[in-house]
Amino acid sequence: LTDMLTLPHQHLRYNPLRDSWVLVSAHRMKRPWAGQVERPPEEHIPRYDPNNPLCPGNKRANGEGNPDYDSTFVFENDFPALQPDAPDPGSEQDPLFQSKAARGVCKVMCFHPWSDVTLPLMKKEEVVKVIDKWAELVEELGTIYPWVQIFENKGAMMGCSNPHPHCQVWASNFLPNEPALSDRCQRAYYQKHGEPMLLQYAKREAEKKERVVVESSDWLAVVPYWATWPYQTLLLPRRHVLRMSDLTTEEREGLAAIMKRLLTKYDNLFEVSFPYSMGWHGAPTGPYLKEDNSHWQLHAHYYPPLLRSATVKKFMVGYEMLAQEQRDLTPEQAAEKLRNLPEEHYKTR
Amino acid sequence: LTDMLTLPHQHLRYNPLRDSWVLVSAHRMKRPWAGQVERPPEEHIPRYDPNNPLCPGNKRANGEGNPDYDSTFVFENDFPALQPDAPDPGSEQDPLFQSKAARGVCKVMCFHPWSDVTLPLMKKEEVVKVIDKWAELVEELGTIYPWVQIFENKGAMMGCSNPHPHCQVWASNFLPNEPALSDRCQRAYYQKHGEPMLLQYAKREAEKKERVVVESSDWLAVVPYWATWPYQTLLLPRRHVLRMSDLTTEEREGLAAIMKRLLTKYDNLFEVSFPYSMGWHGAPTGPYLKEDNSHWQLHAHYYPPLLRSATVKKFMVGYEMLAQEQRDLTPEQAAEKLRNLPEEHYKTR
Ligand SMILES: O=P(O)(O)O[C@H]1O[C@H](CO)[C@@H](O)[C@H](O)[C@H]1O
Ligand SMILES: O=P(O)(O)O[C@H]1O[C@H](CO)[C@@H](O)[C@H](O)[C@H]1O
Repeated sequence: LTDMLTLPHQHLRYNPLRDSWVLVSAHRMKRPWAGQVERPPEEHIPRYDPNNPLCPGNKRANGEGNPDYDSTFVFENDFPALQPDAPDPGSEQDPLFQSKAARGVCKVMCFHPWSDVTLPLMKKEEVVKVIDKWAELVEELGTIYPWVQIFENKGAMMGCSNPHPHCQVWASNFLPNEPALSDRCQRAYYQKHGEPMLLQYAKREAEKKERVVVESSDWLAVVPYWATWPYQTLLLPRRHVLRMSDLTTEEREGLAAIMKRLLTKYDNLFEVSFPYSMGWHGAPTGPYLKEDNSHWQLHAHYYPPLLRSATVKKFMVGYEMLAQEQRDLTPEQAAEKLRNLPEEHYKTR
Repeated sequence: LTDMLTLPHQHLRYNPLRDSWVLVSAHRMKRPWAGQVERPPEEHIPRYDPNNPLCPGNKRANGEGNPDYDSTFVFENDFPALQPDAPDPGSEQDPLFQSKAARGVCKVMCFHPWSDVTLPLMKKEEVVKVIDKWAELVEELGTIYPWVQIFENKGAMMGCSNPHPHCQVWASNFLPNEPALSDRCQRAYYQKHGEPMLLQYAKREAEKKERVVVESSDWLAVVPYWATWPYQTLLLPRRHVLRMSDLTTEEREGLAAIMKRLLTKYDNLFEVSFPYSMGWHGAPTGPYLKEDNSHWQLHAHYYPPLLRSATVKKFMVGYEMLAQEQRDLTPEQAAEKLRNLPEEHYKTR
């Protein structure tokens, strides 16, 4: 196996969380790139911008004013994809034209009052506040909704339209495709092996070391064996934890610390504020709270698009959309690069 | 149902080809866009560029010279993700670290000797030549390989690094995720309903009309009921056809004509050479040639990213990657817009 992993030859790897395969063609990194080059993110973001609807004290699109917040701040998305009170369009059962009602709520959460910071540049205590708020939202929205999706789109490249540090929380009355698939895969694994898949996986990766990026007593971040995005990572607690709200105070502090370390390495990779989409997956909530969810393990996925530099991303296009995801370097190569980067942020060095 | 379709309220729709759901939140089109704006594609591409490795007579990266071709031209990708003779890295059976050998071949196919044309601007007879070559490649590579993926990445936005009109053909010794899923869904439908899913679907859509973009006696292009990309389309023959190579001469001519009509509408939508990734799915080949594939129906998927204008695309990011695909206008709205566009190309008007 070790031999194979160092070989740059194409092969397939299995993603047990999604029951699918990824094509690993490491030799593709040799091809020259003459395609689209991205604009690097803006370097000089003002700490406070009177026209930014996310800054403390400012007015938002709906005319409401933000409080003069000095930590995290949560509000309802002004253009929500999910609304709690939208008329129910009903369901259609026709096998070719099937529809279902969808209800929910979309919230935005500012991480910090300042626009010119990001998670890796925030103080550990400030990141803990973000985690506490995440846990609170999962708990609160989870009393009703089966799924509470916390996600962050960071950088214009990832569709983020506001540089102020923030994430989103969309809760829905349905289990979306991705968690439904992950639930099915983790359940099948648990039934077969008698242990949660990702708990076993974290143990094995901690022993193997070759895909570990950062670790601590409570947490582990690896480039998963089945990573599709070039520098994709999976962030896992080492203890069996179902949901964000189950994390102890120490585990939240440990999480803030490891997030800062991971995201600092990301920024240091190409010396740029690293774009990504990330999100948390934990055991479903709402009606699922009454069920046995032992097969679940809390985890975060980081999906960063950059491949070669601050301005050249990986395009998941034709072959990837129509056939199968394909990557241009091995997960081991990516993990090694990230692991060897300094833990001090390039902006504060 | 009709009422629901005209309502802008959020709902879920089922994709029977992928056994998954899409969140339709039409009211999201109202939100203002302050995010990333794309560069419009280059307007003035020279017909012949001595430095473009895809032009007739020029040298490619590996030192080989192109012939002075005057129609289509196929060659091996100089940086292939799949190689036929790569050493076999073997298989690993460990449930958490599973791998498999991957072999195949990657070809590039130029559509035309000129760099300044695209399919909608080519003559119908020239497009027929492209289709004939596709059919030939499916037949030829399909004698050995179970899957032959024809796909086109058009535009820099879709990772295309050369403006010369071309597509790619990647053949593999495995059935990739997407066709494997589609095969499973079509088989289950056939077993339950006794007719190929997409044959029935084409009939129903031709009757309903509301999602039809263009149609002819042999072909139909619709924005599928379950479309995820804003102006996604599905192009289908009306007869039961398993593979590209089974198309009659008349059907190939009809395909050339409808492709030109569809792609002209795409270009006319925002008066720009419309970026997309597209590809063909037909019954699997190689060892599958001996099996019954009656559940299959040949079809092409077009996945274009643009949402609001020539420079504002839909970002499939955080929620879409972590939870579920979400769209900002209904498929019926998209179909109506496309349907009402002129069939004469804005560049030749
Ligand atoms: O082979 P090309 O055209 O250089 O590359 C393009 O298409 C490939 C197949 O969809 C993708 O993997 C690449 O990310 C994309 O840039
Ligand atoms: O809600 P936002 O931040 O304006 O929008 C962003 O995130 C959403 C959820 O991933 C996506 O659907 C949008 O395409 C993207 O631009």
